[in-house]
Amino acid sequence: MSTRVAVEDLKAFCVEALLRAGAKATHAQTVAEVLVTTDTWGTFTHGTKLLRDYVKRVKAGGLRSDTEPSVVASGPAWAIVDGGSCLGHVTSVFAMQQAIQRARTAGIAYVGVRNSCHFGAAGYYAWLAAKEGLIGVSMANDIPSVAAAGSRRSVTGSNPLAYAVPNGTGDPILLDIASSTVAGGKVYAAFQRGEPIPNNWILDEEGHPSTDSSLYPAKAALTPLANHKGYGIALLIESLAGLLTGAKVTWQVGSWIWGDATQPTGHGAAFIAIDIAAMGPRDVFEKRIAEMIREIHDSPPADGVERVLVPHEREWNLRRKALVEGIDLPSDVVGKLAGLADDVDLHPAWLPRSA
Amino acid sequence: MSTRVAVEDLKAFCVEALLRAGAKATHAQTVAEVLVTTDTWGTFTHGTKLLRDYVKRVKAGGLRSDTEPSVVASGPAWAIVDGGSCLGHVTSVFAMQQAIQRARTAGIAYVGVRNSCHFGAAGYYAWLAAKEGLIGVSMANDIPSVAAAGSRRSVTGSNPLAYAVPNGTGDPILLDIASSTVAGGKVYAAFQRGEPIPNNWILDEEGHPSTDSSLYPAKAALTPLANHKGYGIALLIESLAGLLTGAKVTWQVGSWIWGDATQPTGHGAAFIAIDIAAMGPRDVFEKRIAEMIREIHDSPPADGVERVLVPHEREWNLRRKALVEGIDLPSDVVGKLAGLADDVDLHPAWLPRSA
Repeated sequence: MSTRVAVEDLKAFCVEALLRAGAKATHAQTVAEVLVTTDTWGTFTHGTKLLRDYVKRVKAGGLRSDTEPSVVASGPAWAIVDGGSCLGHVTSVFAMQQAIQRARTAGIAYVGVRNSCHFGAAGYYAWLAAKEGLIGVSMANDIPSVAAAGSRRSVTGSNPLAYAVPNGTGDPILLDIASSTVAGGKVYAAFQRGEPIPNNWILDEEGHPSTDSSLYPAKAALTPLANHKGYGIALLIESLAGLLTGAKVTWQVGSWIWGDATQPTGHGAAFIAIDIAAMGPRDVFEKRIAEMIREIHDSPPADGVERVLVPHEREWNLRRKALVEGIDLPSDVVGKLAGLADDVDLHPAWLPRSA
Repeated sequence: MSTRVAVEDLKAFCVEALLRAGAKATHAQTVAEVLVTTDTWGTFTHGTKLLRDYVKRVKAGGLRSDTEPSVVASGPAWAIVDGGSCLGHVTSVFAMQQAIQRARTAGIAYVGVRNSCHFGAAGYYAWLAAKEGLIGVSMANDIPSVAAAGSRRSVTGSNPLAYAVPNGTGDPILLDIASSTVAGGKVYAAFQRGEPIPNNWILDEEGHPSTDSSLYPAKAALTPLANHKGYGIALLIESLAGLLTGAKVTWQVGSWIWGDATQPTGHGAAFIAIDIAAMGPRDVFEKRIAEMIREIHDSPPADGVERVLVPHEREWNLRRKALVEGIDLPSDVVGKLAGLADDVDLHPAWLPRSA
């Protein structure tokens, strides 16, 4: 059973919960914006469901409320940002803004981040660039949860990769994928719903496929997307978000959920922005991408498919609906929010009390 | 049955075949170097096997021998290159060299390419950057051969993505993947060997999975890698290599194999270089990546796996062996080279006559 909530009500709850945990007002606003936007897309594994664990780390001090991200080294087309162990969303918005600004003069810019933490949905930051008319790419590392091709234990994080390409409509093409077959959040969600999982999502401790969602993460590794391909993508992300930025990599990264909440996690991230208008007339690009999207829409669909869509088209439609009608939060999200409500003693009328 | 050939003998044959077709000496050298290097990696689907079809286009004029790639627009961190419809390998080497040079001052650089043609293995160009101590990324579009998520016909090319990260050893981490489940070349190779294919590689004209390799490409589409993920990656490549560069995209791109060989194909490509040394001490990066690779090597392998490897480690070992002992060309490659030998009337002693 889902619970419907207005976007503004959900955002206000997130802001207030963060403030009660001790977060700065500006940070609380940013994190609420990222998480609630993610929920409007229907990407509930990476939205407000995660807030309770962020709030625990803010309270415990592992996520710091007295710091700001800052540029520690830079050139015209790049920067390295130290996140100061504050909320990863705050550091990531700052870093993508730096990339956008530098790409406007240089054409392309890379901004690497260290001393960050989990940043939610990678796609949000790519979108920030697309909203400004630039192509955005974002990625991050994380504590290992995914096997390498040929390994029986976790070697890399489920390192997400996202991009967004503006097309003049406000609904940019946007892709946000884990380098594992599925994100760990999908395995948790199945476990919380008491459901088994397909047999290609995880490997047990012997390195064999399993459908038992309860094994993850203590006794299982996620499988890499298409085996060597996802493993290779994860190592590119480890290189750009971790090795190049001075962030922690692989098993040095702390767990933002199970690790000591008083300590920083040291996550890395990377953001790239490319300015379309630097390289040619914007209207030519927009005309060409509109033609490509029309061609895709006109492509004959497979049996049972109504229309061939571009990446994130479904999510933009969900968002439009959510902004008018509210978001239908699934029960696992509501359960996490109810727990958070207890933690910070904040009980809005729309949120059912926890059982 | 394979045929063993010394690397230099194979290279000399490729150069001479291109010269007889009318290619410039410098272009012939570059193309031979790219294709033979690819064969030393054991990546025979993208090596000298392709030369016969390139030579046909050079002879027919669709690949021009009287032009050079040139920068038509640029800034400190980017450039757009017009390939002048000459051999795609020549344009791609030129473009990656431009990216390397610009990244050395800007930190990162993007070079987009239009009026190019098929460029062989994307990984070769990423390697050029890694050889110079930079992280390299390369990609290209192609005539549609891959279904979109939810489509029953081809929508994008099998758009390859490659990257290379130097690690101080001369054996950089290198990944080169198609955004389809497998590259079309693997389906041809199975067809040429008379073998069926796994049922997740292609969709037939009704959009249903098929194991019949003879259907591709006329009556089948390749499946996108992990469905929406590969489709999304293909559209990022279409954006960076096609839309942004002024290249042809999707069905505008000509087929370099079956299309009118007197006409240019209009392929696009994109190259990104990131200078590690611009952002911090090189030795710190090399120490950190060496630690990560050691950690991967020490990771417990799955049943039947001897050791967990980093991407391209197997190929670097094959190359070392090939440089000393020669390359064992598989029979499908030998068959194509024998056909080329007839086309240009060039019959080296190591190459069996075609049947």
